[in-house]
Amino acid sequence: MPQGKPAYVPDDGLTTRQRRNRPLVMVNTGDGKGKSTSAFGLALRGWNQGWSVAVFQFVKSAKWRLGEQSAFEALGGLHESDGTGGAIEWHKMGSGWSWSRKAGTDEDHAAAALEGWREIQARLADERHGLYVLDEFTYPINWGWIDVDEVVETLADRPGRQHVMITGRRADPKLIEAADLVTEMTKIKHPMDTGQKGQRGIEW
Amino acid sequence: MPQGKPAYVPDDGLTTRQRRNRPLVMVNTGDGKGKSTSAFGLALRGWNQGWSVAVFQFVKSAKWRLGEQSAFEALGGLHESDGTGGAIEWHKMGSGWSWSRKAGTDEDHAAAALEGWREIQARLADERHGLYVLDEFTYPINWGWIDVDEVVETLADRPGRQHVMITGRRADPKLIEAADLVTEMTKIKHPMDTGQKGQRGIEW
Repeated sequence: MPQGKPAYVPDDGLTTRQRRNRPLVMVNTGDGKGKSTSAFGLALRGWNQGWSVAVFQFVKSAKWRLGEQSAFEALGGLHESDGTGGAIEWHKMGSGWSWSRKAGTDEDHAAAALEGWREIQARLADERHGLYVLDEFTYPINWGWIDVDEVVETLADRPGRQHVMITGRRADPKLIEAADLVTEMTKIKHPMDTGQKGQRGIEW
Repeated sequence: MPQGKPAYVPDDGLTTRQRRNRPLVMVNTGDGKGKSTSAFGLALRGWNQGWSVAVFQFVKSAKWRLGEQSAFEALGGLHESDGTGGAIEWHKMGSGWSWSRKAGTDEDHAAAALEGWREIQARLADERHGLYVLDEFTYPINWGWIDVDEVVETLADRPGRQHVMITGRRADPKLIEAADLVTEMTKIKHPMDTGQKGQRGIEW
């Protein structure tokens, strides 16, 4: 429970206000549960601030529809109908990116992942959103489909006030170095260890 | 990204279906960010399943209104207006529990915390909700306001299919022992370490 008190005040030439409003790159990594759920919980805060929020899911299959997606679509609908909260966009690679003409992307995941990243780059340059959730984004980086140096450079150069949250296991050390806020989720105990399968409402 | 494959199938006399549907006690602990946001992200999944979801915030002050609360109130409103998703209740100790006649609880936090726990016990016995989020619940336990043995016993004896998610630092070892799913959030990096204050949309 952060109390808003910084550990020390740096000599960086910024006012407290400038420092406070600095947009963040955030990473949720580790083998434990809660990386994505926490990112979506954060997105609720962004929605409540009236930010435009865009989620990009890089790995989950098209069939895997998270409860969060339905909830965010409902919240996005409220924004459209009466201006409550912010606008929401939810894009899934597994079903073919919504802006893309390609129907399925099963043949070439690497190309689809890169296409998603190019879109995110373009949106960052345009300052399209207040918060970007790049869910499971560490995997296409780790598989060599997206160049981590390019990601780091794009994030460092992004204009305006755009927050970016990245989730996924084994975040590249360069990504961690570039991030402002990094949390590692560690599994202490999981029902699957004792033979329990995933269940609705908990895993999706 | 769990694939729903158990590590092994135990010889516990339960069918896969029984094992799959076993209600869970979950704990998000550790010093890192994401314990509460992840719990609220999980609650989105419960809402989407049509479960009755109840949040009990044990520590945050009445002034500290999380963006999640507004988002969940909006989602609960959708449930009331057209039956979308599940019902939502959000109770805060800081502003005096909603069911209580006591106006403020600033004088006696210990009594207020215990009163909250008694209400939760009664609701568990009545099978009132599908998911209980006991946010920051480890603190009143660790401060000796609520007896951990009683909590463990109540959770073990709860009837029906009720999931319970508990958040907070330094979860009692007995609580961890009693839980089915435990995740530790570890801080790798936080902007407050470099003098940045908390900001809207990120911390609340």
